[in-house]
Amino acid sequence: MTREHAQALDAADPLAPLRDQFHLPQGGGLIYLDGNSLGLLPRAAAARLQQLIGQEWGEGLIGSWNSAGWMAMPSRIGDKIASLLGAGPGELVVADSTSVNLFKLLSAALAIQRQDAPARRVVVSERSNFPTDLYIAQSLCREHGCSLRLVDSPGQIAEALGADTAVLMLTQVNYRSGRLHDMAALNAAAHAAGALALWDLAHSAGALPVALNADGADFAVGCGYKFLNGGPGAPAFAWVRPALIDRCVQPLSGWLGHAAPFDFAADYRPAPGIARMICGTPPVLSLAALECGVDTLLAAEPLGGMTALRAKSLALTRLFMDRVADRCAGHGLLLASPDADAQRGSQVSLVFDPTSDAFGAAYAVVQALIERGVVGDFRAGSPVGSAQDRADILRFGVAPLYTRFVDVWDAVERLGAVLAGGEWRQARHKLRAGVT
Amino acid sequence: MTREHAQALDAADPLAPLRDQFHLPQGGGLIYLDGNSLGLLPRAAAARLQQLIGQEWGEGLIGSWNSAGWMAMPSRIGDKIASLLGAGPGELVVADSTSVNLFKLLSAALAIQRQDAPARRVVVSERSNFPTDLYIAQSLCREHGCSLRLVDSPGQIAEALGADTAVLMLTQVNYRSGRLHDMAALNAAAHAAGALALWDLAHSAGALPVALNADGADFAVGCGYKFLNGGPGAPAFAWVRPALIDRCVQPLSGWLGHAAPFDFAADYRPAPGIARMICGTPPVLSLAALECGVDTLLAAEPLGGMTALRAKSLALTRLFMDRVADRCAGHGLLLASPDADAQRGSQVSLVFDPTSDAFGAAYAVVQALIERGVVGDFRAGSPVGSAQDRADILRFGVAPLYTRFVDVWDAVERLGAVLAGGEWRQARHKLRAGVT
Repeated sequence: MTREHAQALDAADPLAPLRDQFHLPQGGGLIYLDGNSLGLLPRAAAARLQQLIGQEWGEGLIGSWNSAGWMAMPSRIGDKIASLLGAGPGELVVADSTSVNLFKLLSAALAIQRQDAPARRVVVSERSNFPTDLYIAQSLCREHGCSLRLVDSPGQIAEALGADTAVLMLTQVNYRSGRLHDMAALNAAAHAAGALALWDLAHSAGALPVALNADGADFAVGCGYKFLNGGPGAPAFAWVRPALIDRCVQPLSGWLGHAAPFDFAADYRPAPGIARMICGTPPVLSLAALECGVDTLLAAEPLGGMTALRAKSLALTRLFMDRVADRCAGHGLLLASPDADAQRGSQVSLVFDPTSDAFGAAYAVVQALIERGVVGDFRAGSPVGSAQDRADILRFGVAPLYTRFVDVWDAVERLGAVLAGGEWRQARHKLRAGVT
Repeated sequence: MTREHAQALDAADPLAPLRDQFHLPQGGGLIYLDGNSLGLLPRAAAARLQQLIGQEWGEGLIGSWNSAGWMAMPSRIGDKIASLLGAGPGELVVADSTSVNLFKLLSAALAIQRQDAPARRVVVSERSNFPTDLYIAQSLCREHGCSLRLVDSPGQIAEALGADTAVLMLTQVNYRSGRLHDMAALNAAAHAAGALALWDLAHSAGALPVALNADGADFAVGCGYKFLNGGPGAPAFAWVRPALIDRCVQPLSGWLGHAAPFDFAADYRPAPGIARMICGTPPVLSLAALECGVDTLLAAEPLGGMTALRAKSLALTRLFMDRVADRCAGHGLLLASPDADAQRGSQVSLVFDPTSDAFGAAYAVVQALIERGVVGDFRAGSPVGSAQDRADILRFGVAPLYTRFVDVWDAVERLGAVLAGGEWRQARHKLRAGVT
């Protein structure tokens, strides 16, 4: 395999033109493999925000809540996101942050179980879940008199579910390893045990096909600023299975989730449907940028949509892994992501073997790579958990809307050069001296 | 008094140049008296957002969280807002919406009381409070086994406080009437009764001087998009009296309120100080616009700051009331705002006498005024409460940063013309026919 082969893959890629939707940093000179932290800027966003600010805010002012459709944004953008996740119109709403939405949905789920099955007082999750999910669950468990049961590996999830389980709460793609859960199987396991299934789609939405309804999920939240390209701190989303939504009571009962907000009625009455998951006035500027981001994914629909994007994503991560095995051999890099396609999200994570020279230097390696124009990500090992949980991770995300095969090729070439030339030692020296 | 007199007041106004900070709708042709719903666009916002989007997001990408100071925005903008509210640096943070922040603070206040004085299980507020405040309080009362005691007039507040009271929760300036509470006196009354005092500053922040520390408040939330000119749905803020913050536990325990978010630790440990009131990742685009808005108020500091702005605001509303009494005499308009300066926020609210021709036509009058280039606001009467609560209101906000005396003059002239010429009848006819 040669660089020309990677170029040929790009030339033959029907999704390649979708890259033109984005502003390419450093005139295309930067290889950005961190779209799973913050997606690239959609070109449309700057013009949209200029219009929003100058015309809709500056001229339309308060009237723009109706005339410019601001009031409809949470549901309009929600419908667009729903179409990427196997959900229907009116089932999903954009609001607040992922953490706040998780609070709403987990609270609603626990309240339903308290009514239907008061003995169910355990939330099952993974110790390796993203911390904010566990923090929110800790808070709600304390409040609801429940407890959190954390498993150490995916294989332990099924046996952790039982007659005491209220909710199975999982992040579909692990933020460190990129491990992808089988949503349908775990929903079935949860339901067989009498539990409700709540999913965090932070690293799934816009990265791979999700089938919330078909796979039997009950609740889902997710993030707007990763693969949805919604911009820094973009608002998040919340989805509830239609059959459950009318039973959902959530404690963040703000006026815009009211059935008739502008009646200014004395008592809270939740809006019908998913709109009850809205709380306060939404941040319109950030919503507008998110809509531009979501539209970059909808543009893939005529080209095969999420299914085609997923196939490309898997080809990109496969190429990344193959090239690491070849170009970085002998430097002690181990794959921390699943090798099986069905278990891997849209990223490749690597760790250093404890016996390798660069063990403990993952951060320095990431810094040295940045100096060579490749942006990956570093995630420090957890102070607790398994050996894999404790290892520092190099994380490389691919975004099939804009990552090219040649980007993967070049990124691994440079990673190999950083390791072979010992550049990470200088980077580590500078880091220790506090220079960078 | 003549229009020339109003013009002379503007010519002599040392704050007049502050208006140049704003984009003036319709080239200055529109008289906008709805800044208490959505403030005018600061001229700086368009350029700031362009820079943020093009450079910081487009080029800096994930690195901008540190290099462009995104991570510091909630506290940096919070410090600026604190300086307008008689609070110190590090005491106030920008986050989420007013509703969500109210949830955090009221929850923390109730938890403190549950620990210190478990028999205190009543939240005292006003029936005329903004609905979202009451909805959130209803939710938290249900959860904490507390109850909500609503009074019908400000004079009943003191007697409603007692040995059972946990929290006095008030909005300082009523959204309908513009009535302004005496914060120092009510804090003293709350504390004398052993209660904590929580304030919603939605119509206070940026409208009048607030002295949170000097006046002895315990908790405060407020809104970014009204007098702070932060743009549609701008993020809100939360403040806690420094002596209380280390005792505050709030249930929205998201990762960015953690003491060390990037340690990704297993257990939630609240950040020291007010940062624990942050939850998820903040909407950076909306935060940047809010900062431009807050800066328009800080620009008044060399000219006397909030004290000078308050004096101008009172002069503007006084002129408005005087002109209504003169120009609109005989049309049954009654003042729904307090006549006493010390009890009036930065708005004038009017109702129609039940015997007047235009009774029940307040919305049509507001529409007719908009056709004449004056944007005020309509608020429907409440289905419950006192006669005043039940009345439809015409609401005119003045923003001393940009509202001129001549604007007030012209607005009331046109209001008088609308009433005298019966234009509101045509507007009502059109509304009934569904034309507008």
